Amino acid sequence: MIKIAILGLGTVGTGVVKVVTENARQIERKLGEPLQVKTVLVRTFRDGPCRQLMTDDFKKIEDDEEIRVVVETIGGVDAAYEYTRRALSAGKHVVTANKQLVAEKGCELLALAKKKNVSYLFEASVGGGIPVIHPLTQCMAANRIDEVYGILNGTTNYILTRMVRTGAFFSDALREAQAKGYAEADPTADVEGIDAGRKICILGDLAFGRQIDPEGVPMEGISRLSLRDVKVAQRAGFRVKLLGRAVRLPGGGRTAYVAPHLIPESSPIANVEDVFNAVVVRGNATGEVMFYGRGAGELPTASACVADVMECLQASPRREEIGWSPETDGFVDPLELKTRHYFRIEGSLSEAAMAFGQVEVLSEDGETAFLTEALSGRDAARQARGLHVLACMRVLEG
Amino acid sequence: MIKIAILGLGTVGTGVVKVVTENARQIERKLGEPLQVKTVLVRTFRDGPCRQLMTDDFKKIEDDEEIRVVVETIGGVDAAYEYTRRALSAGKHVVTANKQLVAEKGCELLALAKKKNVSYLFEASVGGGIPVIHPLTQCMAANRIDEVYGILNGTTNYILTRMVRTGAFFSDALREAQAKGYAEADPTADVEGIDAGRKICILGDLAFGRQIDPEGVPMEGISRLSLRDVKVAQRAGFRVKLLGRAVRLPGGGRTAYVAPHLIPESSPIANVEDVFNAVVVRGNATGEVMFYGRGAGELPTASACVADVMECLQASPRREEIGWSPETDGFVDPLELKTRHYFRIEGSLSEAAMAFGQVEVLSEDGETAFLTEALSGRDAARQARGLHVLACMRVLEG
Repeated sequence: MIKIAILGLGTVGTGVVKVVTENARQIERKLGEPLQVKTVLVRTFRDGPCRQLMTDDFKKIEDDEEIRVVVETIGGVDAAYEYTRRALSAGKHVVTANKQLVAEKGCELLALAKKKNVSYLFEASVGGGIPVIHPLTQCMAANRIDEVYGILNGTTNYILTRMVRTGAFFSDALREAQAKGYAEADPTADVEGIDAGRKICILGDLAFGRQIDPEGVPMEGISRLSLRDVKVAQRAGFRVKLLGRAVRLPGGGRTAYVAPHLIPESSPIANVEDVFNAVVVRGNATGEVMFYGRGAGELPTASACVADVMECLQASPRREEIGWSPETDGFVDPLELKTRHYFRIEGSLSEAAMAFGQVEVLSEDGETAFLTEALSGRDAARQARGLHVLACMRVLEG
Repeated sequence: MIKIAILGLGTVGTGVVKVVTENARQIERKLGEPLQVKTVLVRTFRDGPCRQLMTDDFKKIEDDEEIRVVVETIGGVDAAYEYTRRALSAGKHVVTANKQLVAEKGCELLALAKKKNVSYLFEASVGGGIPVIHPLTQCMAANRIDEVYGILNGTTNYILTRMVRTGAFFSDALREAQAKGYAEADPTADVEGIDAGRKICILGDLAFGRQIDPEGVPMEGISRLSLRDVKVAQRAGFRVKLLGRAVRLPGGGRTAYVAPHLIPESSPIANVEDVFNAVVVRGNATGEVMFYGRGAGELPTASACVADVMECLQASPRREEIGWSPETDGFVDPLELKTRHYFRIEGSLSEAAMAFGQVEVLSEDGETAFLTEALSGRDAARQARGLHVLACMRVLEG
């Protein structure tokens, strides 16, 4: 009998209890022995099936030598950070879905885990139940990873899907998402691109082997996105999606950011709808590989945590190949990245052509919407200086 | 310095040499020491960059204690089977892309590997460079897997894509695929569903933990598929795709088969085009997860082999969780599986309704094309007995 503890009993924590119970037979077959949740850390005691497992004293878990793996589902940094450090220091494996903690402190916590000869795993922190981190770090280990990008936030993708399908304004689509439970009462982290930003930092850390400081990553969400641009893009054969991107630059640097993009509708990621997520990894040998599924939700996320628990226990003494350098040098402002740009201006085609030379017109009716040739974000901003810009987005190259 | 041997120097073997050379830095960073191809087994010596590594005597590899991993890229069963057994018996890890050998002898070779405390890994045998086996067996380990299905053969998917896009007949699209190097001179294994059949056997073995005997798996290809059905399906909002499917049945049995299917165009897998592959795994916790990318080709397939080599070396002494029981009981004829069916008959709608009751008409012009309610393949065949059937396909439920 293998015993684990769960910190926090919110959506993911509750899901972990369910998965361990409902899929006990599958898990035992793979592990060779049963898996049991022994202790659950909570702040306030509540009635329910886990009542007898609850404690509000982390020390009970820290000192319990029977507990081999701790699943941290508290979220945020403060308490989660402290308990994770203490659990690792006590020689326990730690598994988490906490993207903020991994993005900000992952490098340090991995180093601590290594020192203590235990694992710190976080497959569930990106893409919920979709296997992403594992395939990226192990299955594609023989590649030089040149880019990782994806639809990393289900809430914003749901909102964008509603805008495309029903012509809803952002604010109405957001209210609909809140009514369905897809968006929280305070949707800031989702709609402003912060959630996607944390995830792209983690993917970039792993892809390039060096720390990407979330502070240095520009995160633009969809709250200022106009329905008009969604429609113009659609008529021109594009979909607007909020992408997180981490890119290896030709000179050897790397960059990362979050922003809405125009994506050609023939691209598989353009057809990822509703609350689904997708992550594309471009390796120099495999080319583009895409992982698709439900990026959030109680059971998908919890099942990824439990798979990590199983992996900790099987990879004795610890999984080797995950980790990255704390060095942040080589990070380049994404303004340097060259792509085509979409502009909508209050002005004529000749004004657009004057500023950008060759452009591809998407619509002309008082306002002008057009695509530029590939140019850096910096040049795009500079050349647009004399124009009355109503909207500007990057285009994902097909 | 870690030394490996390659058996065979065809497309995949040559690719392995290239990946080990070109991505030497990435590989060394992850492994902690350089990886080197020491010996290459060939039947006839040829000039080239590997000339000095060549031998035609397997014993040189078998007896070489420096060689820790053997990459088998011979293909087929005979020699590949013998050398794999001998390499495992000599205490070497073996990695392969050989789907026929894994489908037919995988269970036995995994048992031998276990006995010898080494790994037998075959990520490249399904989906080329797309991570599939690893995510299925590890990342989704906390799920009960209820179904695996996919577009497992790039050649047939290319042909189907051409039929849809350009209205080409099967025979013309096949010739085009051959001209582009996507289909072999003898395309039987691809177009008759045999290649996809081997792959779905492997996925079913791993998903359900019991041997699926390839002999018992009905494999229907696309060689008899009519352009007319592709067009009728398309006008009705479906795409025709060749799917391999392995399904857990409600009663606890399991089944597997390969056949062309109608897929609703809103389904992500319906939009997988050209030579791309996609595998969908349905777990009871994660729901449907899809893996997408290039399912074949020198570098993608080779990079999956090299990742497996790295994994063998890191998972000391061996990877635990892969394997399945040799028992084949519980396998149910896929004729028992209930789905909607597509029929095209020489006859009227009233004949269709007489045979099947409620039907959904797709086209009526002398011939009648329609969809039935969900019913087993056996019932579909029985109820169609009095009709002049021109085509019949299953429909993938959305």
